[in-house]
Parts: sequence; structure tokens; C-alpha cells
Amino acid sequence: MPQTGRSGCPINLTLEQLGDRWSLIVIRDIMFGNRRSYGALLAHSEEGIASNILADRLKRLTASGLLSRRPDPKHKQKGIYSLTEAAIQLVPLLAHMGAWGCRHTEPSEELSVRAELLDKGGPPLWEAFMDELRYLHLDAPRPKRSVFQELQAAYEAAVEKASRRQREEG
Amino acid sequence: MPQTGRSGCPINLTLEQLGDRWSLIVIRDIMFGNRRSYGALLAHSEEGIASNILADRLKRLTASGLLSRRPDPKHKQKGIYSLTEAAIQLVPLLAHMGAWGCRHTEPSEELSVRAELLDKGGPPLWEAFMDELRYLHLDAPRPKRSVFQELQAAYEAAVEKASRRQREEG
Repeated sequence: MPQTGRSGCPINLTLEQLGDRWSLIVIRDIMFGNRRSYGALLAHSEEGIASNILADRLKRLTASGLLSRRPDPKHKQKGIYSLTEAAIQLVPLLAHMGAWGCRHTEPSEELSVRAELLDKGGPPLWEAFMDELRYLHLDAPRPKRSVFQELQAAYEAAVEKASRRQREEG
Repeated sequence: MPQTGRSGCPINLTLEQLGDRWSLIVIRDIMFGNRRSYGALLAHSEEGIASNILADRLKRLTASGLLSRRPDPKHKQKGIYSLTEAAIQLVPLLAHMGAWGCRHTEPSEELSVRAELLDKGGPPLWEAFMDELRYLHLDAPRPKRSVFQELQAAYEAAVEKASRRQREEG
């Protein structure tokens, strides 16, 4: 008989391994923002993640094999976090989450641009992005195309457009 | 300035709207098991969901527009739950969760069969399944193909195979 809270269903096991909402938020920030240290993740958090929650989720994600940690060569006591192959393979899941959010919630324009590009690009774009993440996190060869820069440029253009609009309106 | 825990990111808003692990477990059971009442969801839960958690998540999912509730014609005080269009559009997300779980966790064989079929079938199969869910939950016309029955038949064959193996080994 299955015990409370456990089953061999792959959807359930995925949810158990990912943990709660904050775990995926941390993975998102490492993946799309290339924030690799505790300090960068804390300082730039859009959702203002609490420091104890961030420290706990980094520990859990490292223990469950979604992140790896190596010491920062400049400050030995600090860590640099990398996505593992398992975490990189969450790209399609996060792309679908973003696409669903664009359709069924009311996201801000600036923060939707990357989700919309990922949705439009579909599996070929996700594969290219995963190859680049393997370069950034797993020392794989550098691919020619940088999806990371394409997403980042689109995001920055949207931020610029929004702040221009605000200046004009203000 | 964003307040703690809030942002306009579509991935974050999706995670906020879906809530915790149990919410997606309930959606999964309604979607793939066609369990439409509190009683059926409680009695057949693979994870042994607690009755108070189930009641709470049904209430929340209905309030947030992922489920709708109508009175059971046979027992007016009981409810029949249906997926909304927004919940039906979670099929690709759940398909990716199942596929990721098959690759990166150790699911049971019986409970992996449907996830593997959904992964192999890809977007065309997901679309066909979503059309059938619109028939089952939203009174749309009945499609010719029943993905639900294909998944169910594959699952039952896997259960039968597993129990035959157990009898032979026992």
C-alpha cells in the first residue's frame, strides 16, 4: 500500500524532487539570469526571496542533484552554483510554465518577453538554449548561437521601452 | 518596487496560481483518472491525500478558476468537479513533468506507462487529449479518438503484467 505522500508516479516524483515554488524560482534565476552566487541571487531577486529561504533551497537543490556547488576561486568560503544536466532538462517545463502564465495570468510586459520568445521558438530554441546552458554550467563546447543573449537583449529592450514610456507619461 | 513574494514574471505567476504540489496532484487525478468528486479523489488517491488537504485544494482551485463545481444531480449537497479551459491547457506542462520524472527519478513501471506514451506522442497527442478533456469537462463535441482510453488501456495492461509477474514470483 502506498504511504501517505508517496507514490511511484513520475509526475508526483517530479513535484517531490522540485520541492516548492521557491526552488523553481531559484532555478529560473540561475538559468535565465545566470546568477551563480548566493549574493547575486539574493540581491537581484524580483520576488525579494528571504535570505534564509534562499540558503535553504540552495542546500536542498544541491543535495537533490539539481545544482552543484564549487568554491569561488576569489573567496574560498563562497560558492558558485551550476545547473546539473537534470536541471538543464527543465527548460521545456519552465518554457511551458511561462507560456501558460502569459495566457492565463497577467504578467508584466517586460517580464513576459523572454517567455513569449521561448514559446514561439518551441523545441528547436529550447534545445539551442540547453546546449548553451551546458556550455555555461557543464563546460561543454560553446555553441555558435547564444539564445541567452537573444533573450537578454529582448528583455533589456522591453525594460528600456517601459522606462521611456514612464518618463514620457511622468 | 516588487513586494516580497510577488512579481510580474509569468513563471512566478504560474507557480503562484498552481499553488503547491497537492494542487497539481488533484488536477492530475481529475485529468488522467477522471475522478470528479471529493469521494472518488479521496478513495483512489495513490499518494493517500489527507481529507482536509483535498477539501482545501478543491476550494482553492475552484476559487482560482482552474476547476468548476456543480451540484451532483443525485446528491445535491455533493459536487461534481470539472477542469476549466485554463486547467486543460496544463496538459503539456504535466506531460513534461511526467517525461522529466521518467528520466530523472525512479518511478514505478505501471505508473510510468502513460507518461511515456504522452512523451512519445508529443504535441499532436496532447492536442487530441485536450480536445477529449473539453468533451469530458466543457461539453464540447466528442472527438473520434479517445486518448483517455488509450492511456487507460496501456496503464491497465501494465498493472496486469505487474500482478502476473508478482503471482509467478510469489
